Amino acid sequence: MYNREALPEPTLRRLPWYLAYIDMLSADHVEYVSSTSIAKAINVDASQIAKDLSYLNIRGKTRIGYEVAELRQELRFFLGFASRHDAIIVGVGSLGGALIADSGLSRYGLNIVAGYDTNPAVVGKEISGVPVYDVSRLESEGCPQEAEIGIITVPPVVAQECADLLVAVGIRALWNFTPYRIRTAADIVVQNTSIYAHLAVMYNRLEVKNDMQG
Amino acid sequence: MYNREALPEPTLRRLPWYLAYIDMLSADHVEYVSSTSIAKAINVDASQIAKDLSYLNIRGKTRIGYEVAELRQELRFFLGFASRHDAIIVGVGSLGGALIADSGLSRYGLNIVAGYDTNPAVVGKEISGVPVYDVSRLESEGCPQEAEIGIITVPPVVAQECADLLVAVGIRALWNFTPYRIRTAADIVVQNTSIYAHLAVMYNRLEVKNDMQG
Repeated sequence: MYNREALPEPTLRRLPWYLAYIDMLSADHVEYVSSTSIAKAINVDASQIAKDLSYLNIRGKTRIGYEVAELRQELRFFLGFASRHDAIIVGVGSLGGALIADSGLSRYGLNIVAGYDTNPAVVGKEISGVPVYDVSRLESEGCPQEAEIGIITVPPVVAQECADLLVAVGIRALWNFTPYRIRTAADIVVQNTSIYAHLAVMYNRLEVKNDMQG
Repeated sequence: MYNREALPEPTLRRLPWYLAYIDMLSADHVEYVSSTSIAKAINVDASQIAKDLSYLNIRGKTRIGYEVAELRQELRFFLGFASRHDAIIVGVGSLGGALIADSGLSRYGLNIVAGYDTNPAVVGKEISGVPVYDVSRLESEGCPQEAEIGIITVPPVVAQECADLLVAVGIRALWNFTPYRIRTAADIVVQNTSIYAHLAVMYNRLEVKNDMQG
């Protein structure tokens, strides 16, 4: 239906920005929006926006622009937010527990079916209805059949070991929240979301600004 | 002390990877490490690693390599993880609450001093010793003096409004967890960590792999 392989990565990264803005318009009951208005609101060139949206086979109407409801639905569908993606999570500490409890993720199509940890304080419990098992269960019983995504929120020192286990039980995409650089086979998707690394980038930018002003 | 402005962004993004690996070596009581070993472990060219580390005025010794304890200390110091950065957080929902409770962040130098929300269910409470105030208090009493960083974990539709308020009360860096593309003055640092956008990138990669195999 779409030619996803041809989609440039920067386009893919911008699409959620458009959706966030369109969600806002939708909440405000706006019916039509021009690429110029989107451009002004989120600071991306109007021509770039039109080009990006053409990958989704969406085209605005002359003088009217894009229909908000249609654009929202197309974006949600294309980005995968409209369908269910089952996942398991290894490491149910503060961040892992929070991701399980975050209702926002389910609105974006992520369905966490089980958590795994080694800590007796959380194993056997439920968080927002999601059971937390001992990680040994993953080795003995394998992965819940439907899960394709494995979320890694363990301490960085065991991130690689955790990734290897997830791949061994059939997980096809790893969402790595640790700053550890996981190595894996080429057919496995690795998405890094290292919030601590972002912290370092922010500290550094702040330091540069402080130096410029001092 | 450092020429931070000359530091390329990709270098800055790689430094936390090195630190995560060095932390692991440190936990294993390893004393020295070569750039070749780091390269093998985290899949970055050894020459690139040596070049990156030279920005920190760290050089390995011939045939011995880098001293793990020294490299760890230098990286933590350079990345800002060794000093305290005070922050406030607006939006104490599941993600915001989790960031407050995440002891990991304090290990990386982030000290959250207060949370703000409009929800009566959390206002007046404490999370891990951090008080949660009504957001109106930020307008009436301003920002706790020492805070330079404002964390935004509100719904995307109010992200811009929240950013404007934070800047108005003197915040100099915004850590934006929403997918909304915040606009602000050039002297304000904006760090985007949009976990939902990362989710879309991961779904898309998975879709491409599934298409290739199907």
